[in-house]
Amino acid sequence: MKPLDVGAVKITDVFWNRYIELVREVIVPYQWEVMNDRVPGVAQSHAIANFRIAAGRESGEFYGRRFQDSDVAKWLEAVAYCLATKPDQRLEALADDLIETIGEAQWPDGYLNTYFTLAKKGERWTNERESHELYIAGHLIEAAVAYFRATGKGRFLEIMKRNADHIDAVFGPGPGQLHGYPGHQVIEMALAKLYEATGEERYLRLAKYFLDERGRKPHFFELEAVARGEPGDLGPFGLKMYEYNQSHLPVREQKKAVGHAVRAVYMYSGMADVAALSGDKGLAEACGALWEDVTRRQMFVTGGIGQLEWWEGFSRGYDLPNDTPYNETCASIGLMFWASRMSRLELKGDYFDVAERALYNGILSGLALDGKSYFYTNLLEAVPEEIEARLDAEYSGAIRRGWFPCACCPPNLARLIASLGGYIYSADERRLAAQLFIASSAKVAMGGVPVEVTMEGDYLRDGSMSIAVSPDRPVRFTLSVRMPGWCGGGRSPIVRLASEGDGSDAALTNGEAPTNGETPINNEAPMAIEDGYLHIDREWKRDDRVELNLPMSARRVRANPLVREDAGKVALTRGPQVYCLEEVDNGPLLSDITLAREPDFETRYEPDLLGGLTTIEGKAFRGGCGGCDGDDCGSGGGSGGRGGGWRDELYREADFERKPIKAKAIPYYAWANRGRNEMRVWINQD
Amino acid sequence: MKPLDVGAVKITDVFWNRYIELVREVIVPYQWEVMNDRVPGVAQSHAIANFRIAAGRESGEFYGRRFQDSDVAKWLEAVAYCLATKPDQRLEALADDLIETIGEAQWPDGYLNTYFTLAKKGERWTNERESHELYIAGHLIEAAVAYFRATGKGRFLEIMKRNADHIDAVFGPGPGQLHGYPGHQVIEMALAKLYEATGEERYLRLAKYFLDERGRKPHFFELEAVARGEPGDLGPFGLKMYEYNQSHLPVREQKKAVGHAVRAVYMYSGMADVAALSGDKGLAEACGALWEDVTRRQMFVTGGIGQLEWWEGFSRGYDLPNDTPYNETCASIGLMFWASRMSRLELKGDYFDVAERALYNGILSGLALDGKSYFYTNLLEAVPEEIEARLDAEYSGAIRRGWFPCACCPPNLARLIASLGGYIYSADERRLAAQLFIASSAKVAMGGVPVEVTMEGDYLRDGSMSIAVSPDRPVRFTLSVRMPGWCGGGRSPIVRLASEGDGSDAALTNGEAPTNGETPINNEAPMAIEDGYLHIDREWKRDDRVELNLPMSARRVRANPLVREDAGKVALTRGPQVYCLEEVDNGPLLSDITLAREPDFETRYEPDLLGGLTTIEGKAFRGGCGGCDGDDCGSGGGSGGRGGGWRDELYREADFERKPIKAKAIPYYAWANRGRNEMRVWINQD
Repeated sequence: MKPLDVGAVKITDVFWNRYIELVREVIVPYQWEVMNDRVPGVAQSHAIANFRIAAGRESGEFYGRRFQDSDVAKWLEAVAYCLATKPDQRLEALADDLIETIGEAQWPDGYLNTYFTLAKKGERWTNERESHELYIAGHLIEAAVAYFRATGKGRFLEIMKRNADHIDAVFGPGPGQLHGYPGHQVIEMALAKLYEATGEERYLRLAKYFLDERGRKPHFFELEAVARGEPGDLGPFGLKMYEYNQSHLPVREQKKAVGHAVRAVYMYSGMADVAALSGDKGLAEACGALWEDVTRRQMFVTGGIGQLEWWEGFSRGYDLPNDTPYNETCASIGLMFWASRMSRLELKGDYFDVAERALYNGILSGLALDGKSYFYTNLLEAVPEEIEARLDAEYSGAIRRGWFPCACCPPNLARLIASLGGYIYSADERRLAAQLFIASSAKVAMGGVPVEVTMEGDYLRDGSMSIAVSPDRPVRFTLSVRMPGWCGGGRSPIVRLASEGDGSDAALTNGEAPTNGETPINNEAPMAIEDGYLHIDREWKRDDRVELNLPMSARRVRANPLVREDAGKVALTRGPQVYCLEEVDNGPLLSDITLAREPDFETRYEPDLLGGLTTIEGKAFRGGCGGCDGDDCGSGGGSGGRGGGWRDELYREADFERKPIKAKAIPYYAWANRGRNEMRVWINQD
Repeated sequence: MKPLDVGAVKITDVFWNRYIELVREVIVPYQWEVMNDRVPGVAQSHAIANFRIAAGRESGEFYGRRFQDSDVAKWLEAVAYCLATKPDQRLEALADDLIETIGEAQWPDGYLNTYFTLAKKGERWTNERESHELYIAGHLIEAAVAYFRATGKGRFLEIMKRNADHIDAVFGPGPGQLHGYPGHQVIEMALAKLYEATGEERYLRLAKYFLDERGRKPHFFELEAVARGEPGDLGPFGLKMYEYNQSHLPVREQKKAVGHAVRAVYMYSGMADVAALSGDKGLAEACGALWEDVTRRQMFVTGGIGQLEWWEGFSRGYDLPNDTPYNETCASIGLMFWASRMSRLELKGDYFDVAERALYNGILSGLALDGKSYFYTNLLEAVPEEIEARLDAEYSGAIRRGWFPCACCPPNLARLIASLGGYIYSADERRLAAQLFIASSAKVAMGGVPVEVTMEGDYLRDGSMSIAVSPDRPVRFTLSVRMPGWCGGGRSPIVRLASEGDGSDAALTNGEAPTNGETPINNEAPMAIEDGYLHIDREWKRDDRVELNLPMSARRVRANPLVREDAGKVALTRGPQVYCLEEVDNGPLLSDITLAREPDFETRYEPDLLGGLTTIEGKAFRGGCGGCDGDDCGSGGGSGGRGGGWRDELYREADFERKPIKAKAIPYYAWANRGRNEMRVWINQD
């Protein structure tokens, strides 16, 4: 099964349409201005200028990180997805000109990289561990494939094929070639896309080569260091540097996720791609083990990954510190890439459960409601003064930033959201899988018959969705609808099948937890539940409809007791969304709030709050401070010795006084849109 | 008031005598072997060899950190304190020979430092920010003063006076002098000691100069960098480097404790010394503000300080993370130095309350019961696998280490414990203050009359102490007995005064919380309670006795609600000791344990456990894992998805099942003496 093309799906969803339009109307133009250094007060980019200088269109010097080109690539990919769903001649002309610039910056042999063209001319292909040359190539290839699919124009794809052919000549098993692989993965995914777009097998072979070569001994990064005249060992990090970029073991032997989280999930995505496209069982098995490790042991409830700040990456299982994780926005985006590819290998609801968890929480939290500021790291517990005292405060914060010196996340958000249509459905000849519940209309061919699929409803608001299937003529196929993993505990989806064509109207599930191989409650219905999907295998007629009622009540979630940071705490959730307490609603010092055993949750849709969202209120207590009034409590989380009578004491004999309050939670993605303030996902539970 | 000399007090305490003997019999010999590189399997020291090579006694090269000499200095200081209380000819001969070696390593001009003699000959006094030259001088001066006081021998003192005179010539306000100060403080304290030992005011003046010069603009560390031909700015740390070594502001303007904790408290100690010896009010006031900040906002319940690993130092107020603090053993030792000096400035119980908290908890935890391994950092919550996955795992751990490449802590523990007699009493002409409750006999002169003071009892075991005062002839003075700050909440000390001389037997307090200016319950007794001391002003006769009954029950302590890490948790304490849960007593996954609202604590002295100590048992629950049996729970805190039915789930809808258990706590200092296992101080409270 393959995801539908972005261009084949038009999103009509009230929640997501706002974001898609934001990308089109605000984010893409804003990021263009930033990359042209025309936005005052944010980190300098110079990314467009680097290309223009390398192309000889203007004079100047390279500025920025050595991977600055990749920002441009991701922005162009976002533009491609925008154009795929809505023509925009001005934007397309801008992109075409930028693509020409990129072409002019390319070397005669196909090499393309402004840093090694302008700043380090003699050093290309000498330090792949650090250079990001293959990383930039990968992002540009992905952009070129997207642009080709969106516009049908071949120029960008030709440029990047020339670049890929150059890379294919430089790297490989031959005697004159580098037996190497990227320091920062992404090119594996990109080459798989290039193979699918062109049908040329050498690109898939090269992707597989990069994966197979990785982690072999003698170690490529040592060999290239020695070739540069440097010591073979890896400096202060020592052996950790191998783990950092996942070159510590051959990829097929990797069972635990280690190192830099973005590199990791980009690599796992590439492994899943190659496994899917080549039928490589060993890669698929390695992906399965890594998936278990990441999603069962190292993933925050928000879909954030990468617990350790110091290497922006994974830790040991169950080490999930809420106040200091890295949880890079890009890492959650990469997790969604990977989840979607795992689903291509094997249709199990778990994959898109994780994708959905990341999308609605740890990814979307990276973006301000106005589209112009971004979180690089996504904390689950934020006390502004504490974060700002940290060394990495430039990337971590309680306020989103307009840009970053290392600006990977903002354009990654743009391309992810612009391509969201490509995640709603997967299909092959005889099966159509509904993966995400996002109102949309899609065109797909099933058994050669054009089918219009229309999803309607406001998932986040009330959980009522319908999927209307309208083939040009009756055609048999299986519609597989994901039953979200967050449904459970006796509050499972109710699903009906209604057909105007044959007048049938059958209940398929009745709200009990679906289990594998369950008999449908209506034996007439051609239904089976397996691996988190409701599979309906029938001859579909015009306007057949599946209606879902997904139970959107407030729930409390606990973490596995091995997660010591969450012991005694709960997270509030509703549907796919994780909630949080914010200081603006609850006063300062959120750690002092304890949720009542019976919180009697009230949920309310608030149309004027943060673009419209559903809040959860519940009974709680303020405890440790002896039940002070908000007024006494000062501005909170701060530096004074506030809190009922404590003032200058740090420790004193325990008392058990507390004061009943109401705690109000909002969806996690929407926090930090009302100023700098405290936030907390995991709440003390009485 | 001044502390009594180490040599004037003989400790007879059952608890501390074991440690004093351990220093004498095990630690001092062990550390000598380590510093001579004769202990296999521990980090190389080479510290003695460096001196021998610099002295020309053997050939070879410098090895180690540039401050390696300071280990030798602290070891010699420990030896001095051992000799002060018990002669040992072999040890003294060993020390004398080492002192000769040190003398031979001294330059003709008085300069003394093996690193800059052997490894960086031309670079002395060019980079005080990093060189530790004044740091080493300071430690050697302290050792020399201690050795002089212990043995009466002048050789070491003469060497170090020559060194101090050299430093006095190099640094100062004169035109040819360096207008600088140490990168790592300690010499301020050392010069104050040298002044007190010699009466030569120039040493006190130099200490004051170093303090007054610090933080002035233009910044000395920038000027010396420029003089070396390096950029004036301070590299990647930027302005944080000024805070790191407390040179960001003139010391009198410093109100918040920042930067490297050991440097900070050593400097604050020096400030208090100079304030006490020179009557400098400005320094005393700065000390007061810093004391408030450290002890009211930045101190762990164990007396650990230095919350941030990355600069081994302070954070913002109330940021007290239990699992990742630095809490260097040396920092808690420095806090005790400072507390004792603050008490010299002003007799308030708070100072020795803090000293006692540090001593019994965060300092003593640095030392294994066998004396041969050490904690560098002292965590309040340890999960071995998590600690070992960290970058600084060489210094942080769940197992004490035999030595460290940077080995400041082990000899610091040795000299602190060997000098403990010097912390029990302070005295001036008309007052004797009992600061710590450690059974001992001391000789002191009050109003010119020799007085023998004998403290008896086993403080930790039952809190019953008596202080017998026996003057050669009746003499009037005030005995001020600290009423420990941990007494409170209606469980305060009961104090009686018994005199065989005049037959009086008076109750002074009856167990109610003493408050300032309280009338004694017996109006006959010449007593007042003020600032945490019970002051008894009378004519003392032979065998007068003050009997104290200190309530040694198990208590629960909460942290100020602004400490979000401790929200919903309690620490168990008993007397001056903080307790902890250890995995060996409670099974793995200590975060899963919740103390019952009414724990019905049982305390029991267990003579065969960890050298003999009192344990606390209380009712508790195992919660999150649904009440699994210990057997099901595996080896804990580990990598498997254990815990009642959770297995491969990371998050699921909350339940409230739990199983009653008994939780058993031991004193914090004694943890990690029964193998590598989990430990936790702050326990979830129902």
